[in-house]
Amino acid sequence: MSAAPGHALIVHANPEPVSFGAALRDHARATLEAQGMTVEVSDLYAMGFDPVAKAEDFSLRRFPERLWYDREQQHAVRNDALPADVEAEIGKLRRADLVLFVFPLWWFSVPAILKGWFDRVLVKEVAYGGARRYEDGGFAGKRAMLVTTTNAWPGMTAPDGLMGDIDVILWPLQNGVLAYTGFDVLPPLVAHAVAFVEPAEREAVLRDLGARLGAWRTAEAIPFHRVAEVGEDWRLRPDVEPRLVAHRR
Amino acid sequence: MSAAPGHALIVHANPEPVSFGAALRDHARATLEAQGMTVEVSDLYAMGFDPVAKAEDFSLRRFPERLWYDREQQHAVRNDALPADVEAEIGKLRRADLVLFVFPLWWFSVPAILKGWFDRVLVKEVAYGGARRYEDGGFAGKRAMLVTTTNAWPGMTAPDGLMGDIDVILWPLQNGVLAYTGFDVLPPLVAHAVAFVEPAEREAVLRDLGARLGAWRTAEAIPFHRVAEVGEDWRLRPDVEPRLVAHRR
Repeated sequence: MSAAPGHALIVHANPEPVSFGAALRDHARATLEAQGMTVEVSDLYAMGFDPVAKAEDFSLRRFPERLWYDREQQHAVRNDALPADVEAEIGKLRRADLVLFVFPLWWFSVPAILKGWFDRVLVKEVAYGGARRYEDGGFAGKRAMLVTTTNAWPGMTAPDGLMGDIDVILWPLQNGVLAYTGFDVLPPLVAHAVAFVEPAEREAVLRDLGARLGAWRTAEAIPFHRVAEVGEDWRLRPDVEPRLVAHRR
Repeated sequence: MSAAPGHALIVHANPEPVSFGAALRDHARATLEAQGMTVEVSDLYAMGFDPVAKAEDFSLRRFPERLWYDREQQHAVRNDALPADVEAEIGKLRRADLVLFVFPLWWFSVPAILKGWFDRVLVKEVAYGGARRYEDGGFAGKRAMLVTTTNAWPGMTAPDGLMGDIDVILWPLQNGVLAYTGFDVLPPLVAHAVAFVEPAEREAVLRDLGARLGAWRTAEAIPFHRVAEVGEDWRLRPDVEPRLVAHRR
């Protein structure tokens, strides 16, 4: 991470240009720029980003007879043959010290256009590969944060809520995507019931976002377990206490 | 659910026609047909399914000034104006007693093409809507099951594994998509490290799938919490003990 104010990437996935998500995106950008940071935005809908990982992504193939998507990603990196749109997104990630993902929570996850950005852009050999994952992931040293809107009420995603703990709901994104590829993951901003609450509550969410982004370099990251804490069987060593919702003995 | 042998839908999402996922799909189909069932397959890659939920999905709009995707889905259902590809998939769901999802686990979730199938096909007013969710979801009375392949070793997704408990990893899919829309969710078939193990192990996975599908009507479903178990604050009532990984007090 550079010592200068730094550079941020905001990945935005929302089909409605004037959504509250767009307000969050714009407020994030303004807050970061006010710190002297430079900011890039990947507005996936505006870009018409193609989310479907497929054989046509590879102009040359290591295994022409059968598609192993991750191995062809690796081969493409080594031969400088990634698709142009994927290469462009990787460039943005490499430049960034901080990456924000701004999206509505659809079916307990990201919209497909953002899921496909993970599938296609987080290529093997860059984002991870071989033994490189978690603390040795490709984006180690960078920080990331989810900023998501939902129509659920807060009680629904409480630890004893009907839909399950929000930390479980976000696990595949925060652990499986972000921590896995090396990011320090900042606590998520979850804006509940945005279509139903009063404007003043949405204003409070924007202020909360501003305050968190004011502290993005020093905020405590979620303490996901690291490779150094597991044995050869990939399970927590006996001396390591499970410390997050997805781990237990 | 009909008393006849029944009807199944297999939703398949894999960019490689000769993958092990395709073998699982074909074995599932053959096993179910051998029971006298009829089977439809939605092969999303072969169909070129469009996974991007967008304004153009709606030929008439209730709120032209701003896109609320779920409200427009509801409006389209009421006016018989859903996109033809979405309508076709809903028809398949309505006919099915059993729905299987066969896919590789990418970034702890489904490939984008299948995530977009959830986003676009599980429309408000059909799959859920108003107070209808979980036991009153649109597909109550049907059963569903995930069949997924992964390159992870089993220890990685054990309850004390580095990546976290597989039940947490699959929570957004099994609880957030399937249980939420009313399905009884059968325990998932997770085929670990399929690219690395011996052919005999893959054969054993196929036999396991066959055995489970032989008992699909009577197998015990995952006991996700129901709306009847929560209070007005959407949290488990005091007399209800949390019984799954995403719930605690």
